[in-house]
Amino acid sequence: MSDKLIQPRVLKGFRDYLPSTMLVRERLMDTARRVFRSYGFSPIDTPALEYAEVLTGKGGEESDKQLFRFQDQGGRDVAMRFDLTVPLARFAALHASQLGLPFKRYHLGTVWRGENTQKGRYREFMQCDFDTIGTLSPGADLETLLVIHDLLVALGFERFTIRVNNRMVLNGLLAAQGLSDKTVGVLRSIDKLAKIGVEKVIEELVERVGLTTPQAEKVLSIARPEATLDDLDAALVDSELGRTGVERLRTLFDTATAAGIPRERLALDVSIARGLDYYTGTIFETFLNDLPGIGSICSGGRYDNLADLFTKEKLPGVGASLGLDRLLAAMEELNLLGDASTPAQILIAYFDANRLGDYHALARTLREAGFGVEVYPEAVKLGKQLQYADRKGHRIALIAGSQEFEQAAWQVKNLKLKTAEVVPAANLAAYLATSLQ
Amino acid sequence: MSDKLIQPRVLKGFRDYLPSTMLVRERLMDTARRVFRSYGFSPIDTPALEYAEVLTGKGGEESDKQLFRFQDQGGRDVAMRFDLTVPLARFAALHASQLGLPFKRYHLGTVWRGENTQKGRYREFMQCDFDTIGTLSPGADLETLLVIHDLLVALGFERFTIRVNNRMVLNGLLAAQGLSDKTVGVLRSIDKLAKIGVEKVIEELVERVGLTTPQAEKVLSIARPEATLDDLDAALVDSELGRTGVERLRTLFDTATAAGIPRERLALDVSIARGLDYYTGTIFETFLNDLPGIGSICSGGRYDNLADLFTKEKLPGVGASLGLDRLLAAMEELNLLGDASTPAQILIAYFDANRLGDYHALARTLREAGFGVEVYPEAVKLGKQLQYADRKGHRIALIAGSQEFEQAAWQVKNLKLKTAEVVPAANLAAYLATSLQ
Repeated sequence: MSDKLIQPRVLKGFRDYLPSTMLVRERLMDTARRVFRSYGFSPIDTPALEYAEVLTGKGGEESDKQLFRFQDQGGRDVAMRFDLTVPLARFAALHASQLGLPFKRYHLGTVWRGENTQKGRYREFMQCDFDTIGTLSPGADLETLLVIHDLLVALGFERFTIRVNNRMVLNGLLAAQGLSDKTVGVLRSIDKLAKIGVEKVIEELVERVGLTTPQAEKVLSIARPEATLDDLDAALVDSELGRTGVERLRTLFDTATAAGIPRERLALDVSIARGLDYYTGTIFETFLNDLPGIGSICSGGRYDNLADLFTKEKLPGVGASLGLDRLLAAMEELNLLGDASTPAQILIAYFDANRLGDYHALARTLREAGFGVEVYPEAVKLGKQLQYADRKGHRIALIAGSQEFEQAAWQVKNLKLKTAEVVPAANLAAYLATSLQ
Repeated sequence: MSDKLIQPRVLKGFRDYLPSTMLVRERLMDTARRVFRSYGFSPIDTPALEYAEVLTGKGGEESDKQLFRFQDQGGRDVAMRFDLTVPLARFAALHASQLGLPFKRYHLGTVWRGENTQKGRYREFMQCDFDTIGTLSPGADLETLLVIHDLLVALGFERFTIRVNNRMVLNGLLAAQGLSDKTVGVLRSIDKLAKIGVEKVIEELVERVGLTTPQAEKVLSIARPEATLDDLDAALVDSELGRTGVERLRTLFDTATAAGIPRERLALDVSIARGLDYYTGTIFETFLNDLPGIGSICSGGRYDNLADLFTKEKLPGVGASLGLDRLLAAMEELNLLGDASTPAQILIAYFDANRLGDYHALARTLREAGFGVEVYPEAVKLGKQLQYADRKGHRIALIAGSQEFEQAAWQVKNLKLKTAEVVPAANLAAYLATSLQ
C-alpha cells in the first residue's frame, strides 16, 4: 500500500505548529489564562461547529462568505465558528439563567475564516477573549482595562499604550449638530488621521462626507491624539450624550490611576472606532510602543446588547480579545521565539545499556524536584546523543557509566558553557538548581 | 431584527462546557502538559481541517463514514480530523528531516466524529496524545509506561493498574502453530474473556475460529489475567518471535521497577489487543481500580511504521493517549467536579461607590501576592453581592466602607465558616494565606 504515496501537505492558509513556535504559543496561552483567572473570569468552551443560522448574518456579508459551511451527515446546515463572540451570544442566551448575572468568562479557542491568503492571513487562528456580561457598571469597564494592562505586563511587555475612547463622545458631538447620519463616513475619515494628516482629513470630511469646514474642525478638535479631556468638555457643551461619554472616560482614567496603572500607559484617542456598529461605549486598543506596525494586539470595548438575535433579555457587556497569533507572528518575525524546541533543560545520556532503569530512576527523582528531564531513548554513541541535545536546546547533559555508578556520582556537562564537572549524586539537585538559574 | 429570534441551541452530539466543568477540564489539561513537558515531550499543533485524502482510509470504513467532510470555498475536498494520529503521520512525513529523530511530541487537540449519539457519545472531544517517533529502543517503551504512571499520579489517582502486553507474544504463539491467518479471530474471541469466561472463549475459538481444542487451550494458557512471564516462556519454546516479545515484557517490568514504579500498579495481560492491525509490539491499557467500568483511560502501544502512506521513510514509534473527556465525564457522573464555578477564591465587595479605584488597587496587590481576586462590578446592596459569591463559590469576601478605609482595615467574611473578622490592611495577605490553606 506504500506504492502510491499520499502527498503530506496542509491546506492553503493552514499551518502546522512546530515545537519551537508551539512552546511559545503555550506560554502565551498559559499566561493569559493565569491573568484571566486571577481576576475571577471563568473558562468556557463552545463547539467548533454550530447551526449555520447561529453564525450567519452576524459579521456582515464578508464574514458569511468566509464561513466554512456544509451539510453534515444528518443533512443539517452547519458551519465552523468564525469568532468567539457570536458563540458567546448564543451561549449566554442559552445558559444565562443557570449562570446568573453578571457573568465573567474567558474563552481561548480556534476559529476559522476562509480569508484571502494573499495578505499573509491564516484561515485558522486562535482567539483569546474575556468579557463581563450583564452589567452597565463603569466598574466592569475599569476591570477590562486593568486586565489588558496586567496581561501585557505578564506577557513581558513594558512599553505599551492602551488607547481609550468612548463612542458616546463622537456620537454626541455629531448628534448635537444634526450629523448622526454621517457617523460612519466621519469615522472612516478620521481613521486615516495617522496616514494622511489633519489637513487632508478635514478636506475629506468636507468634500466627501459633507460637513461644513467649522463642523469638520470641531470633529478634529476632539478626534486627534493630542486632545485632552478638557478639550472634549469644551467641544461638548451642547451634548448631554457627549458629556456622559467624557464623564465615563474621566472616571476610567481616574480609577485606573487609583488602582495603580502608570498614566503613561494610557492615552485618550477619540479617533479609534473598532467596528463601526458594534461598540456603544468604551473602546480599547493596545499598541506596543516598539512595534506599532503590527496594529492593536488587544482590543475591545462595551456593547449594549450581546444576544439580541437569540433572546429578548438585554445582555450588555464589555470585554476584549488578545490577538495571540498576531503577537506570535510578530515575535516570530522578530526572532524573539528562542530556538529551544524542548521543554526539558536536562538530557540524561543513555550510556550503559544495562542501566536503563537507573537512568529513569534518576530522571524521575529530578522531575519531582521540579526539573524537566529527558532520557535519551537509545544506548547509542555519546556523540550522537550530545548532537541531539544541541539540536533540541538542552542546557545540561548528565552522563554516568559504571565508574560513576560505583562512585555514586554524575558527570555534568554544561552544553552552553562547554564545561564539565563530576558531581556527587547527593548534591546533584542543588548543583543543577544553581547551574540552571 | 429581534422580532424573529434565532433559537439558541447546539448541534446534536455537541455541547457547551460551563465553568464548573471547564475549570476541571483545564486542570486536567494543565496537568497532562506539565507531565509531558517534564519528560521532554514538545507540543505541536496541526490544522483541524486536512485534505480529505490525508484522513480517509486510515481508520477503516466506519471512520470514513463518521468524517465531517465537505468542499471548501476553493472546491477542495476537505475533512475535519477524527484523531491526532493520522495528522501526526502526515506531520512526521512532512517535517521529520527538519525535526530530527527521535522526535517526541505531545498534542492536545479537539477531534470530530459523526458518531451515533444514542450511546451517549459526543461528536466533538479532546484527545491528549504523546508519542516517541523514530526509535525501536525498549527505552522509549519504558518511558511511555513511566509517563502514563506519573500522569495518573499527577491527576490525583493512586489505585490504578497499567495492563501491559506485547503483540509479538500471541503472534509468535499462533505463527509457530501455523495459525497466523486466524489472528484477528483469536483476538476478537479473547477480548470477550472478562465477559464470557474461559470455557466459552475456548468453545468459540474451536467452533468459530477453527482452532483445535489443544491449540485453544494453549492460547488461553497465556491469554488470561493470571498468566505469568514464566507461563509465557513455557508456552513459547517453539517461537523465537514470541520469546522476543516475552523478553521485551520482562525488560519492561524490570526496568520499570528499577525506575521506581510500584509493582502492584503493573499487570501482564496478553488478552489486550487495542486495534487489531495497528500495534505491533508493546500495548498499554490503564484502568482505575475503583472505576473499571469506564474502560481504559490511557491506552497506547508500539507501532512499526507510522507514516508509510505518506513517505518511504520508516518511522516506528510508541505512545499513548489520555482519554481526557472520558475521565471528565466519569468525574462528572460521580460528582467529583466540585461546585465552584470561579477560579478566584476572594470576592471584594464594591461597597462605597466612590472607592472603585481603591477596591481595584487592593485586588491588584493581592493578585501579586498570588491570590485569585474578583471585584464585584456594581455598587449594589451587599446582600446581592454575597449571594453572587455564594453561587460562584468564593470562599472569602472582603468588605470596606468609609470607617474601614479610615482605620486602614478590612472586614473579612469567611463564606464557608460563616465567620467575620476585622483585619488591618498590613496583615491582610498573611491572614488570607492562612484562611485559604
